[in-house]
Amino acid sequence: MRSENKEPARQDVFDRIFHPGSIAIIGVSSKGNVFGSGIFNALVAIGYEGSIYGVNPKGGEYCGRKLYRSVQEIPEPIDFAIIAVPAEHVPKALEDCRLKGAAGAEILSSGFSELGTPEGLRLEREIRDICSRGIRVVGPNCFGIYCPRSGLTLLPGPDLSRESGPVGFVSQSGGMSIDFAHIGKWMGVGLSKVVSFGNGADLRETELLSYLGNDPETKVIAMYIEGVEDGARFFSVLKDVAAKKPVIINKGGLSESGSRAVASHTASMGGSSRIWQAVMSQSGAIQVGDLWEMAEVCHAFSLLPERAYRNITVAGGGGALGVSACDTAERYGLGIPMLDPAISEKILDFLPKPGSSAKNPIDAANPYVSPQAYREIFLHAAQDPRVDLQILVLLLHHYKPLAMGFGIDFVKDIAPYREMAEMASEVSAKTGKPLMLVLPNFRQGMDSLDIEELIRDTRSAFLSRGIPVFNDLVSALRALSHVAGYYAQRSPGGILKKSVDPISAILPA
Amino acid sequence: MRSENKEPARQDVFDRIFHPGSIAIIGVSSKGNVFGSGIFNALVAIGYEGSIYGVNPKGGEYCGRKLYRSVQEIPEPIDFAIIAVPAEHVPKALEDCRLKGAAGAEILSSGFSELGTPEGLRLEREIRDICSRGIRVVGPNCFGIYCPRSGLTLLPGPDLSRESGPVGFVSQSGGMSIDFAHIGKWMGVGLSKVVSFGNGADLRETELLSYLGNDPETKVIAMYIEGVEDGARFFSVLKDVAAKKPVIINKGGLSESGSRAVASHTASMGGSSRIWQAVMSQSGAIQVGDLWEMAEVCHAFSLLPERAYRNITVAGGGGALGVSACDTAERYGLGIPMLDPAISEKILDFLPKPGSSAKNPIDAANPYVSPQAYREIFLHAAQDPRVDLQILVLLLHHYKPLAMGFGIDFVKDIAPYREMAEMASEVSAKTGKPLMLVLPNFRQGMDSLDIEELIRDTRSAFLSRGIPVFNDLVSALRALSHVAGYYAQRSPGGILKKSVDPISAILPA
Repeated sequence: MRSENKEPARQDVFDRIFHPGSIAIIGVSSKGNVFGSGIFNALVAIGYEGSIYGVNPKGGEYCGRKLYRSVQEIPEPIDFAIIAVPAEHVPKALEDCRLKGAAGAEILSSGFSELGTPEGLRLEREIRDICSRGIRVVGPNCFGIYCPRSGLTLLPGPDLSRESGPVGFVSQSGGMSIDFAHIGKWMGVGLSKVVSFGNGADLRETELLSYLGNDPETKVIAMYIEGVEDGARFFSVLKDVAAKKPVIINKGGLSESGSRAVASHTASMGGSSRIWQAVMSQSGAIQVGDLWEMAEVCHAFSLLPERAYRNITVAGGGGALGVSACDTAERYGLGIPMLDPAISEKILDFLPKPGSSAKNPIDAANPYVSPQAYREIFLHAAQDPRVDLQILVLLLHHYKPLAMGFGIDFVKDIAPYREMAEMASEVSAKTGKPLMLVLPNFRQGMDSLDIEELIRDTRSAFLSRGIPVFNDLVSALRALSHVAGYYAQRSPGGILKKSVDPISAILPA
Repeated sequence: MRSENKEPARQDVFDRIFHPGSIAIIGVSSKGNVFGSGIFNALVAIGYEGSIYGVNPKGGEYCGRKLYRSVQEIPEPIDFAIIAVPAEHVPKALEDCRLKGAAGAEILSSGFSELGTPEGLRLEREIRDICSRGIRVVGPNCFGIYCPRSGLTLLPGPDLSRESGPVGFVSQSGGMSIDFAHIGKWMGVGLSKVVSFGNGADLRETELLSYLGNDPETKVIAMYIEGVEDGARFFSVLKDVAAKKPVIINKGGLSESGSRAVASHTASMGGSSRIWQAVMSQSGAIQVGDLWEMAEVCHAFSLLPERAYRNITVAGGGGALGVSACDTAERYGLGIPMLDPAISEKILDFLPKPGSSAKNPIDAANPYVSPQAYREIFLHAAQDPRVDLQILVLLLHHYKPLAMGFGIDFVKDIAPYREMAEMASEVSAKTGKPLMLVLPNFRQGMDSLDIEELIRDTRSAFLSRGIPVFNDLVSALRALSHVAGYYAQRSPGGILKKSVDPISAILPA
């Protein structure tokens, strides 16, 4: 399709876009009731350290700062611009930024090709024309860029984290980008860069993937894609990048009605499910079904050592949970082997009796097994050479009736969650076999906010020690299976060593 | 196998078991440090209105009440007994209860066939022998019976709900029974009876299913099964009951390691996956993968009118959520049809512009669309004759930055959740087409307990008006598809009208 602007952007251009020293926001109102003022507030709130210049043709002030009547009036050079004016004024604003020497701009405004109107299509073509003369654009119809290190943030993102992490996310959807950033903050998905590219008039999936592929800050890449502009080129870049780093993709619009929905959303072509399956399996990228799975898989990749995990232990929970763990593990290609009888016998010493089982799954039969006992259980279990990883299932809500029984008001005062986290960290380090935590919450009623607080504190305690935490066993095993599968492919004899069909032939031109 | 005690119990026997006027608890310690004392406390806490008699050979007192040295010493007849003494003392205790004239007993103790030891097997045989002389037993190795109407409760269940509902649950696992009861309390799964039957020495899956099938209080039946004692008989009863009421089954132990785990858990045989698939599809029962899915499906069945739902609308959320809704709906056999253009045009009047879409999915493009606007949107959409049901997706966490922006401290003060619930109730009633709510929470960090509280209040507001609520769209559509499938089978031309293979032939004897 378009080719004039498809040379890879120079690294210094991307540096100025993701780490701008100065930003112009076109469309800040002194009344504060517009998106431009919202992003102004968000940048101030998140603590962006560079200069922010608000622009409004009427001038005036916003939050005690002068609003400039035009981009030209700004007294300093600008690296990056945020454009949030009605669609018909966008091309002029963008051209002003280009003339001012900005390296790039994000266009938050909608009203372009996603409308399917001649006017919308024309305005988007104008944006492309301006880009071809030397400015890079994210958007339009997007939520922009989030970069924790520089303090750039998404449209409704005043309270995103400033802590940088290993996961980069490229998203055609603005909602998905902000939701992912919020989920990442508590789930333990540290983010390097998030780009919501919306209609993708200029920068989009392939070039952003290639950029993150070379970005030393980014170790894991996640993508939400509605439509790909140039299938063959995307596949080629994806294959290269996925060979270096895990690339996790959620493709929206693979169904008939979904394909229609992406047309109204980001003006994309949905593409066929068959082609996508082939792209995924032949490139070695990882396909996930939704936002939650994507976040969980990124979480697992960012915290687990790079190994082709095969066999695990599961301890805690209860008998039915252990049974469910086995059934689920088998579905995801993981094993829960019966432990060496000599090891089981040692483990049995640390379990309450009767009712428990030390064979693996290790059924503690009691939710109050101590961190000291779990320490011994996991240390012994790790001695079985088949075991690659261990999972602890904590049902913390059971501490509530216990606290009630002892007349203790705060369930947090009775549950040894910090000691459990310390134990998990010690066991992982000593055995060299990672431990993961599963933390279900069966009590989510109005009378159980204290349990929720305990669970969140527990999650933090484990995450701060680098232990992955999942809400339920199915999510944990599914995420682990993706990690295991990715590194198994890369091991000698892995499927990526096999010859690959020329998929480009079946991709749309 | 055994047949001597397999006549269906008389209704008056079950009445005395589920609604006992007096209960003996064998194994209450004056020190309070045993299971028997725990269940004593739980019955008092939940407000069981009948007489409770604690038994301990040493006598003494517990919580100001006399402990009897033997069952015989109890001055009143007893209807039901709870036995929580070490396994070797169980047969004697049970025989005492039989002689005292109790209709039934639950044996909480473990240490029987699940150990696989000759001693465990022998003790369980003794229990069966006593049963054959005229007392019905739930257990051993179980958490007992929960009946909100009578105030019987499970082992760690002092704070379960006393509100009776339409769902009966029969569970081979104690953990599953208590977890289900807790989930039901906040998710909106009203329970009629829960029976955790553990090893199932006497009463077990088939007879309990048959009982709930005839129980007028029970409209929906859920089961967690690890192993079936008499496959052919179970299939025959299941077919009869599933023709009258939805029966939702989670079968544990279908994998190789899972089958081994059920042997240690409840001494059951796991059974083959192929047979189970056939049993499920030919009986018209509904197979679910885990506890969460089971609860969600029961929730949907208990609140939705009995219809073969096919096409739905999805409104709210955002563009990517709409795309995901379409892809997911198609996976579950549901449709999200493009609305009649005349209807879409009317809906567009109530949506923010630009960025929204009124075609279905209805992308509000903004999380702050008012209840008044949603009212009009859903009333218009319902006029499309293809629409069977409507789904509202509320992303309430977006009210937090809004509240921050307005300087409002409590996010609950700004989110119109009661008005939304009122709107949903009005729309359902006016259109005759049910509405469901999806309420995801992307912000579960330590700084967002206020959002969690808002979400729980919102859930309550909708549930109290009979509107089903789900945590995410995938769960909502999956549950809806089970309801739709069940009633579609029952409609003229449904698959249950087709001839059925003689499955009994492939079931184990």
